[in-house]
Amino acid sequence: MRFSSLLSHLSAVDAASPRHLGSDPEIHGAQAIDLAGEGQLCFLESGSGLTAALAETGGSAVLLPCDEPLQQQATERGLAWVALKDPRLAFAEALDALHPRVRPQPGIHPTAVIDPSARIGAGVHVGAHAVVGAAAVIGDGCILHPGVVLYHDVQLAEGCEVHAQAVLQPGSRLGRGCVVHSGAVIGSEGFGFVPTSSGWRKMPQTGQVVLEDGVEVGCGSTIDRPSVGETRIGADTKIDNLVHIGHGVTTGRGCALAAQVGIAGGARLGNGVILAGQVGVANRATIGDRAIASSKSGIHGEVAAGEVVSGYPAIPNRLWLRCSAAFNKLPEMARTLRKLQAAQD
Amino acid sequence: MRFSSLLSHLSAVDAASPRHLGSDPEIHGAQAIDLAGEGQLCFLESGSGLTAALAETGGSAVLLPCDEPLQQQATERGLAWVALKDPRLAFAEALDALHPRVRPQPGIHPTAVIDPSARIGAGVHVGAHAVVGAAAVIGDGCILHPGVVLYHDVQLAEGCEVHAQAVLQPGSRLGRGCVVHSGAVIGSEGFGFVPTSSGWRKMPQTGQVVLEDGVEVGCGSTIDRPSVGETRIGADTKIDNLVHIGHGVTTGRGCALAAQVGIAGGARLGNGVILAGQVGVANRATIGDRAIASSKSGIHGEVAAGEVVSGYPAIPNRLWLRCSAAFNKLPEMARTLRKLQAAQD
Amino acid sequence: MRFSSLLSHLSAVDAASPRHLGSDPEIHGAQAIDLAGEGQLCFLESGSGLTAALAETGGSAVLLPCDEPLQQQATERGLAWVALKDPRLAFAEALDALHPRVRPQPGIHPTAVIDPSARIGAGVHVGAHAVVGAAAVIGDGCILHPGVVLYHDVQLAEGCEVHAQAVLQPGSRLGRGCVVHSGAVIGSEGFGFVPTSSGWRKMPQTGQVVLEDGVEVGCGSTIDRPSVGETRIGADTKIDNLVHIGHGVTTGRGCALAAQVGIAGGARLGNGVILAGQVGVANRATIGDRAIASSKSGIHGEVAAGEVVSGYPAIPNRLWLRCSAAFNKLPEMARTLRKLQAAQD
Repeated sequence: MRFSSLLSHLSAVDAASPRHLGSDPEIHGAQAIDLAGEGQLCFLESGSGLTAALAETGGSAVLLPCDEPLQQQATERGLAWVALKDPRLAFAEALDALHPRVRPQPGIHPTAVIDPSARIGAGVHVGAHAVVGAAAVIGDGCILHPGVVLYHDVQLAEGCEVHAQAVLQPGSRLGRGCVVHSGAVIGSEGFGFVPTSSGWRKMPQTGQVVLEDGVEVGCGSTIDRPSVGETRIGADTKIDNLVHIGHGVTTGRGCALAAQVGIAGGARLGNGVILAGQVGVANRATIGDRAIASSKSGIHGEVAAGEVVSGYPAIPNRLWLRCSAAFNKLPEMARTLRKLQAAQD
Repeated sequence: MRFSSLLSHLSAVDAASPRHLGSDPEIHGAQAIDLAGEGQLCFLESGSGLTAALAETGGSAVLLPCDEPLQQQATERGLAWVALKDPRLAFAEALDALHPRVRPQPGIHPTAVIDPSARIGAGVHVGAHAVVGAAAVIGDGCILHPGVVLYHDVQLAEGCEVHAQAVLQPGSRLGRGCVVHSGAVIGSEGFGFVPTSSGWRKMPQTGQVVLEDGVEVGCGSTIDRPSVGETRIGADTKIDNLVHIGHGVTTGRGCALAAQVGIAGGARLGNGVILAGQVGVANRATIGDRAIASSKSGIHGEVAAGEVVSGYPAIPNRLWLRCSAAFNKLPEMARTLRKLQAAQD
Repeated sequence: MRFSSLLSHLSAVDAASPRHLGSDPEIHGAQAIDLAGEGQLCFLESGSGLTAALAETGGSAVLLPCDEPLQQQATERGLAWVALKDPRLAFAEALDALHPRVRPQPGIHPTAVIDPSARIGAGVHVGAHAVVGAAAVIGDGCILHPGVVLYHDVQLAEGCEVHAQAVLQPGSRLGRGCVVHSGAVIGSEGFGFVPTSSGWRKMPQTGQVVLEDGVEVGCGSTIDRPSVGETRIGADTKIDNLVHIGHGVTTGRGCALAAQVGIAGGARLGNGVILAGQVGVANRATIGDRAIASSKSGIHGEVAAGEVVSGYPAIPNRLWLRCSAAFNKLPEMARTLRKLQAAQD
């Protein structure tokens, strides 16, 4: 597609947007600016470490920030460009235009096994060897990829996509447009056992998992149902791969949980919470709106709204940075201390 | 079910158990005491942080500890109640009574693929698209949910339940009443490679995994078989989601391993060991009976029976608590040290 | 098989290799030296902690290092033995001889669902309920175990083995002799979202995952594809269970990544990098050739070639060992500091 046509797919581009079409190159793909070649689109953000790459990129077109010197440089290099407030967002839109998603055709594969009591909406795709249990409700336009298993009493609102080998256990409720990636398990039994004199006694897990609209769950992630009540993931929350969410956890809207995060039973996250990779959250901890935990931190008790925490046990990030720097000087500190002590004796 | 009927399902209730039936309410479900509503059962333990909730609960009935003031308060509030030594255990029994498990019907789904050499016991359920390999032995009353794959030479004793998409690799042996949750993989090849001048050479993994009676393995957890000998999980050990257990590990009876724990090859755990979330155990470490490791700790070498350890490398929990508190004061300590040094110079 | 026959399977054994056949025992299996019994082979390495076990082993034959006292001891105990430079490597070869791999028969199971546009090589085995998507290319001699799902446009070179329930997403490219274990997901969408005023906007993930020749991916591990370009795993790299590799990561040849390692998007590893269990690597970090990170360490920024690092944030291992030792004495240091300060005041 010509660069000029591509522009029509970018929501932020209007008549007033600064641009330079140059030879209006044919764009057949996209790449990072430092790796892009002939016919490829790339983008550059303000303050990016990749700014220098603009001078050398082999790409044919670039989405630029509102920064005139960069625009001038791009023009001099003969690149086609447009300038926008959010080049990354425009790049996402351009990728969708260049690589339109191929939706699987509606229809139920003959090898799928659908319980007669299940209700299947319009335009639904059910892939090979998928299994849909009793009393399931599949909303319009949902896609179940091959090998998906839905136990009984699972409900998906419109437009959900469930990838190959994902499993939705009894009682799972998915809002509109949820995406469950391969190997994820939603609604499995929470890890609840009562200690008795003859060993562990299972606490029945009779609750359910609710994913609100637009939740995305990564590959191999697990979200357990509780003994009573709900495990609830707030709308627009995005969960990466291999994340564990224990029984009875609730999160607010728009959280982002990076890979290998673990959240123990009963923890409560506010809106917009961001947990970096391998963070752990203890039983019944509470995390306020828009708080951020850096990778590998371990959270007990309470984190206030807007706080940035690090370390284990997690403390304010700024303090942690100073403590960590001091940690690396501990042998030196110990030596100094011994000297001072010797001098005093 | 009436509260009076529910009592007949609680093993600890006898004629002498203190109780107050009140209006003998109809109980149709259960909830936590602070969330319970009309017609719901809840419970309260001695010393629980939820004690204050008794004054406000909307529930209709409550399982109480042996504590007369609480009992009096419940009566005054018009709640039906019974008092027992272990209200949590009674709550587990009540949940089973209120939500009886629906066992899938015995029978083999027509889409299941069973090797002719497999031996299938009485009353076994094999779900859609399950695959049972050569020489497998499935004990009476086992349940294989849809999509389960058993490689050749797998043996399940009576009453095991294997959830959708779990995989049992060659040689796996499961004792009575084991539960394997969705996506778990039992008996996969251990991670063993010999370094050679031309790269890694696979060490064949010819051993097997043995789960003793009553073991439960969480979603997505993996238990590897060793090059020789066994990986053995002791009876009644409960394993949460996304846990990795390396080749040749052995655990005692009744251990509890929380989510995302990783245990490297050859480690040995005693009886009743508890590892909290994201704990790591190094190659050939040994952990004594009833030792406890708090979340995210990393264990090398040896932990004595009954010890509670924390941190990485793990040290006794009490010491670690003090060291962690001091860690947060490191910048201050460094400043003090500089002042003292300056004063001395 | 007689011990003398077994020797013919060991590549390092020649006419000059020191040996003692004794009664040339029949060898029917193998075990660790401290557990071996009648008819079992074991091995011993130089400097192994198991050296003392030679005096007591119940095994019938042992692969020894080039160490005459050990050889003499073995002869005196009546053990059959051979001495080699690398007994562990020979043990691997012996295990292959004692337990020859049973390759599934070539052929496509009648329940497998193969898109008509897929090209299937010679001698390929496709197990029950496997699904092969459009335009897939399966090289000669590949094995797809039951329940494997290949999305469209997946290519496997010759001799790959994909275990039950693994999923290869669109665009995945596997080199010769790759092994993908059960539940692993290759080529899933990277975790990329653009923050907007109305919530997270998915960054399309249009790139692909490339596994070079001889890569092995453990159970439940996930390797994401990037928005543009490649995620590339270098030849002969071995990946353990439950490892997460983010979008756009590249690794060199012969790396070893232990269980539960997490590598965030865009990180770059050199050749021969070793990451121990539960290590985390941050976005865009770079790790030089043959660097090693000990378990649970967290890597940001850059690690030089050949370095050994530990801790979080990771620092040189030697420094970390000293800092960790000092950490355990922090309460004592704090006390000393208070005393010194009091004395000065």
